[in-house]
Amino acid sequence: MRAITIPEPGGPEALVWDEVPDPVPGEGEALVEVVAGAVNRADLLQRQGFYDPPPGASPYPGLECSGRIAEVGPGVSGWAVGDEVCALLAGGGYAEKVAVPAGQLLPVPKGIEVQQAAALPEVTCTVWSNVFMIAHLRPGETLLVHGGASGIGTMAIQLAKAVGAKIAVTAGSKEKLAYCAELGADVLIDYREQDFVEEIKTATNGAGADVILDIMGAKYLDRNVKALATNGRLAIIGMQGGVKGELNIATLLAKRAAVTATSLRARPATEKAAIVAAVREHVWPLISGGHVRPVVDRELPMAEAAAAHRVLEEGGNIGKVLLTLP
Amino acid sequence: MRAITIPEPGGPEALVWDEVPDPVPGEGEALVEVVAGAVNRADLLQRQGFYDPPPGASPYPGLECSGRIAEVGPGVSGWAVGDEVCALLAGGGYAEKVAVPAGQLLPVPKGIEVQQAAALPEVTCTVWSNVFMIAHLRPGETLLVHGGASGIGTMAIQLAKAVGAKIAVTAGSKEKLAYCAELGADVLIDYREQDFVEEIKTATNGAGADVILDIMGAKYLDRNVKALATNGRLAIIGMQGGVKGELNIATLLAKRAAVTATSLRARPATEKAAIVAAVREHVWPLISGGHVRPVVDRELPMAEAAAAHRVLEEGGNIGKVLLTLP
Repeated sequence: MRAITIPEPGGPEALVWDEVPDPVPGEGEALVEVVAGAVNRADLLQRQGFYDPPPGASPYPGLECSGRIAEVGPGVSGWAVGDEVCALLAGGGYAEKVAVPAGQLLPVPKGIEVQQAAALPEVTCTVWSNVFMIAHLRPGETLLVHGGASGIGTMAIQLAKAVGAKIAVTAGSKEKLAYCAELGADVLIDYREQDFVEEIKTATNGAGADVILDIMGAKYLDRNVKALATNGRLAIIGMQGGVKGELNIATLLAKRAAVTATSLRARPATEKAAIVAAVREHVWPLISGGHVRPVVDRELPMAEAAAAHRVLEEGGNIGKVLLTLP
Repeated sequence: MRAITIPEPGGPEALVWDEVPDPVPGEGEALVEVVAGAVNRADLLQRQGFYDPPPGASPYPGLECSGRIAEVGPGVSGWAVGDEVCALLAGGGYAEKVAVPAGQLLPVPKGIEVQQAAALPEVTCTVWSNVFMIAHLRPGETLLVHGGASGIGTMAIQLAKAVGAKIAVTAGSKEKLAYCAELGADVLIDYREQDFVEEIKTATNGAGADVILDIMGAKYLDRNVKALATNGRLAIIGMQGGVKGELNIATLLAKRAAVTATSLRARPATEKAAIVAAVREHVWPLISGGHVRPVVDRELPMAEAAAAHRVLEEGGNIGKVLLTLP
């Protein structure tokens, strides 16, 4: 088969479309013939040599895909050759075929094309596990989403809306904020011109955000804690603004607040399967029912993965960038 | 009645035993005739002028007491004059009488003298709410308790033991560590001579602590995060080592860990009542059954509260210091 390989870490040009051996599904795995993969920010770090695949994972980038089951390994039940699926991967989604633990497979939701479904696994699993399983966002609460127009952001807005929460977002352009509003965001904050702490306080009568979904890490840590409400929960899923930040424990304690940080990729297969099962139970009906949809910025041929990485690096995308196979 | 007042903030001598007006129980409150109060570290901060009572609370120090109900206010059911009780207070425990919201009353547990029961409300509510309601310590997990010989520490050891957890403690003397071992601590760390991160790693085959109950705040933040296991929870309840600390978000994220910080005093009465109800359901049977007991370092007459504060300031106590009334 062919896959995007990284012979030497570096810029987008480090991604090389090359002939590689076919993966073989092991015990409890299925082999998926890929229709589309999707680009995640972690892929950019892997390409630069900063984020090695976890032990046992495919060496090729790609944390999610959609396609059709081509082969079912020993010990797998509930899935058959030809099933249209999408999958959460520990790697290997930038390829014509990938072997996936069965617990990380999801059916393509009713009403969604198989290719579009590649936009779903990472964002639904990340948002559901953080905002709902960990931070327990409740109806009537306020969620602040940093990077509201990103893949994660566009899904977080829709899911929070579906459960009856109020949603505030930050983004860096009027166009992105307008799109967030279309998806259901109630409070639009242009981080280039506005102070999100002040804006969230104003929008909540001084209370602050009950849950914050953050991708900035250190750079926003102090301001995020300031923006939290009493009993607030800050869920960090990215460190685009650095790793080490100052935590004001007195503020955290006065608010009885919590800071959590997680990633999906490093979780053991059992934890991934539990998240995927929860997503299938709670999120899939919202998609099939037309309340929540994948947001796709553009589709590029997988062989042009370098161009797709440049799109994310320039930050011009609204929603996901897909890598398609003919 | 008489109460300990603080005419001017300052050292222990700022505490003045004085004649003051009797409190009057309001709607939903009971008036308790105090048999004993207990000293908490927050009282020392209040005495120094750093920790004002929350709005509506008694101006006198004292976050817990035991005694007998002398009067029942309107709208209170389930309690009667003469009942022996202990109570979680927002203030006013250093006094002959105190008015308490009924939701913060607990019966004196079977087998415990009414005076000793003053040692129970703060430590049981703090440990249960943080270690069990927030951090969800589970059987077989490892709990690290900083200040194992304190009032909080001695209760945390016993409760964690009762649910089948492994317990590591830090303390500053051999005598204190020996007492922690008697209560059930499995791993004893002398923080004056040992590095707790290294010791907890050794004791858990490199895994780290699943839950840490911390009173140091900033000074221990980085080391606490290092000492956490995957999926670990750091529960901060004190800031004896400062307010602002550096948080390594990459370490937190790699461990999928959580940092929470809480205090009891500032919580609204409804939240306090929920914690008190949980303590009555889960902790009181362990005390009545003889599995968990109040640990009292010494008893001093309430009029000598200054001497009691000096004991805590010198850090020589093992367990609680009580303030008794004749």
